Amino acid sequence: MSKTQEQYFELMELVRKQALLTSVGSVLGWDEQVNLPAGGAEHRGEQLALISGMTHDLATDPRIGELLSELESVSDLGEETSPEFVNVREARRHFDRDAKMPKKLVEELSRTGTLALHAWVKARQDKDFSEFQPWLEKMLNLKREEAAAIGFGDGVPYDALLDGYEPGATAAEIQATFEPLREELVKIVAAIAESPRKPDETILTRLYPEAAQKEFSIKAAAAIGFCFESGRLDIAAHPFCSGFGPGDCRLTTRYDEHHFPGAFFGTLHEAGHGIYEQGLNREAFGTAMGESVSLGIHESQSRMWENLVGRSRPFWEHFYESAQTTFPQSLGDVPLDDFCRAVNDVRPSFIRVEADEVTYNLHIMLRFELEQAMLSGDLTAADVPSVWNETFTRYFGITPPDDALGCLQDVHWSAGLFGYFPTYALGNMYAAQFFEQADADLGGLHEQFARGEFGPLKTWLNEKIHLQGQRFRAQRLVEEVTGKPLSHEPLLRHLHGRFDPLYEL
Amino acid sequence: MSKTQEQYFELMELVRKQALLTSVGSVLGWDEQVNLPAGGAEHRGEQLALISGMTHDLATDPRIGELLSELESVSDLGEETSPEFVNVREARRHFDRDAKMPKKLVEELSRTGTLALHAWVKARQDKDFSEFQPWLEKMLNLKREEAAAIGFGDGVPYDALLDGYEPGATAAEIQATFEPLREELVKIVAAIAESPRKPDETILTRLYPEAAQKEFSIKAAAAIGFCFESGRLDIAAHPFCSGFGPGDCRLTTRYDEHHFPGAFFGTLHEAGHGIYEQGLNREAFGTAMGESVSLGIHESQSRMWENLVGRSRPFWEHFYESAQTTFPQSLGDVPLDDFCRAVNDVRPSFIRVEADEVTYNLHIMLRFELEQAMLSGDLTAADVPSVWNETFTRYFGITPPDDALGCLQDVHWSAGLFGYFPTYALGNMYAAQFFEQADADLGGLHEQFARGEFGPLKTWLNEKIHLQGQRFRAQRLVEEVTGKPLSHEPLLRHLHGRFDPLYEL
Repeated sequence: MSKTQEQYFELMELVRKQALLTSVGSVLGWDEQVNLPAGGAEHRGEQLALISGMTHDLATDPRIGELLSELESVSDLGEETSPEFVNVREARRHFDRDAKMPKKLVEELSRTGTLALHAWVKARQDKDFSEFQPWLEKMLNLKREEAAAIGFGDGVPYDALLDGYEPGATAAEIQATFEPLREELVKIVAAIAESPRKPDETILTRLYPEAAQKEFSIKAAAAIGFCFESGRLDIAAHPFCSGFGPGDCRLTTRYDEHHFPGAFFGTLHEAGHGIYEQGLNREAFGTAMGESVSLGIHESQSRMWENLVGRSRPFWEHFYESAQTTFPQSLGDVPLDDFCRAVNDVRPSFIRVEADEVTYNLHIMLRFELEQAMLSGDLTAADVPSVWNETFTRYFGITPPDDALGCLQDVHWSAGLFGYFPTYALGNMYAAQFFEQADADLGGLHEQFARGEFGPLKTWLNEKIHLQGQRFRAQRLVEEVTGKPLSHEPLLRHLHGRFDPLYEL
Repeated sequence: MSKTQEQYFELMELVRKQALLTSVGSVLGWDEQVNLPAGGAEHRGEQLALISGMTHDLATDPRIGELLSELESVSDLGEETSPEFVNVREARRHFDRDAKMPKKLVEELSRTGTLALHAWVKARQDKDFSEFQPWLEKMLNLKREEAAAIGFGDGVPYDALLDGYEPGATAAEIQATFEPLREELVKIVAAIAESPRKPDETILTRLYPEAAQKEFSIKAAAAIGFCFESGRLDIAAHPFCSGFGPGDCRLTTRYDEHHFPGAFFGTLHEAGHGIYEQGLNREAFGTAMGESVSLGIHESQSRMWENLVGRSRPFWEHFYESAQTTFPQSLGDVPLDDFCRAVNDVRPSFIRVEADEVTYNLHIMLRFELEQAMLSGDLTAADVPSVWNETFTRYFGITPPDDALGCLQDVHWSAGLFGYFPTYALGNMYAAQFFEQADADLGGLHEQFARGEFGPLKTWLNEKIHLQGQRFRAQRLVEEVTGKPLSHEPLLRHLHGRFDPLYEL
């Protein structure tokens, strides 16, 4: 073994150990959401803090810096897309981000995050922004410090935070994609609002017994390719997917017996994330080549299975008979067309996580706009509620009656997750662009769905995206897979293709 | 703060960190038994190995040795039973045991344990001891190495292993207590066998729906004092209790719809362990003063609630009406007396974990006898099946038809747990001796049970045992609490008191 190989293997051992310890934290986090008795919250907080601290110690081990310097000075790591090159490149990226963060700032962010989260929960309950305002101010100051510590080249501080979720993306690029998308979305929303065709959405609030919902959700998640031999579906207040590592990926959902779409499309969404996790190269676990590209690419997988597949008519041509058998009292008398219309109901609403496919992206753009202004200092914490409401009214034509339905609805800012929101809308755009390409490559995805065949799409995603790990950054991956840079057009084509006929636009 | 205080606090920080990391391992272990999808086994093994290794590193940190030497050289730690003295004493005990174990041996034991466990599972399925024999030999060699590394003073190698579970106990002392107990137990078993009064145990194999069993088990566990705000009850193939730390204790059980006692008494048993865990001083978490004394004392708590309380007539005078309401089809026509007889059915059987209160201890003595002989070299692995069967026949009057019902039934030896078994029988003796004292102190426990009052006994146990942490070793604790050294007589009094009238002996 050459010296370079030895150094490379030593570095990989160190990064794998980090990933393994991080995955232990994931188990603790999952259990916290799914199983934790009320009395155990404090102790769980201490366990999580210990694992975070130990992970940070591993991540900033000076030996990693030494090995990186050695490896970067040689030229036999292969070409730019070789696993070795990619793994070293990403190890450098993480080491630099971690090493640039003063430990004091890391601890202060963690402590403030915990307290701000509590304050946010209460403020939201009380519908009283003023309780949260000082915490938002404090968090903004810390995030500005973080951005300064990490650095942002010629860009803006926001870029430094964004880069943590969507490596390589910049606010300016995202803005350029969002702008034309927003203009068109606002038009679609207005056209739908004027359409005389309204779905009967009460179909979906009839009685759907929990046990039957669970059975049907699992059946659909398994059919699209989530493997339950290597995963589970449990209940949590805030649905999520957590991939612990090879062979173990956990999905969660929540059941409302009088709201069918929540658990069902929620499960398809999380299963989409899970199929990505299960599709990663298990041999490469813990290295960049065995990890997902970015939050945006992750979201593209969940949104694709939830929306482009799960809300399509062909999907229900296959599944609707089974749905009627599972929920005979609620769906027995409902024609397939009515059901498809109901699960594709589009209308402005206040809560992002309950939004339809068209308005969802507007919710994201609003947040993107506000958090950029907050970071730059153009918008103070105190002015957030009024600016939120003005912007919301401009985008949606309705005004939130209180801050719980407005700027207090999301957990993200309390946890310091600035720069995270845009990845949701990026995910929708990536999803549409990937889907168009898959349809072209595989020929007639809709016909396949109608026959209950989801394997071809899943295998295509496995090969083109999941097994590539972090070989390419998101923007480059889109180009590699689709031959074109990211564009908002595939998403608009998808939305027009779906909603123009449904609403006779 | 004096220098001694500073050193003491530094030491406590180090031992608490160990305990916190160990508790992370407990979460992983619990989840492995309760939730793990089949595909996740390998990754979970790696997570557990990482946490074990990191815990071992913390436990053998030379700084602990330095602090201990400093603290032991001063005299202001207070008297022998002060928290400071006790915490330092036990930190020394652990540090010495851990430091004496060569890392290579620790790793070899871990690796062999995993492989031996797999071999044991298969050998037991195949009822073929020869598949397990080489692993038993290998494990015995490693355990002899371990005993030699730890040392055993004037005693025998077995003592070094026993000390890991029951600090301070020796094989000779246990032998001296077991001997007279065994003689009398054999007589009781024989007398019961000759009694014409036989319970109708078919009562307990009627249909007991799982959901109703769960509800009833939780009701009883809560009634005796297990707090579900700080704990849970889940399903696992092998029932256990795991205390993660303050406010979070997990019980598991398994349901057989045609066997009432399994889940019900199993839950009471685990709840007994859980009440101990929940009764520990939470401020002292991670230090000896916040930990349980020994496996034997732990088992005394579970066996007390399971047997001395849960199988008593007064317990059922309180609960039987509720049982009949919960299981009307199976118990509606069964008089209380018949039910009490059935749950106290005594008869020789092959499987330890299903044994009744009288024969159970004989199962333990058999294992104690054999594993001492194995450790000393008097019994080779190859001869274990024949010696097991001979001894079993001598104790029980029946001969196991195969090794799955004989020497392959327990997981312990495959996992290297030599010296563990006696703690089960010690637990039964401790339980009876504590119970006699509690009855004397509190006056008429049975009358209290009949009224559904379990709080006085629980509070007594909290004060006398749980909140004492490791202030006293087990033998000393028994003397402190009951005024007398451990004796087999309270257990015999309990067994005669219960079974003489039931079987009209």
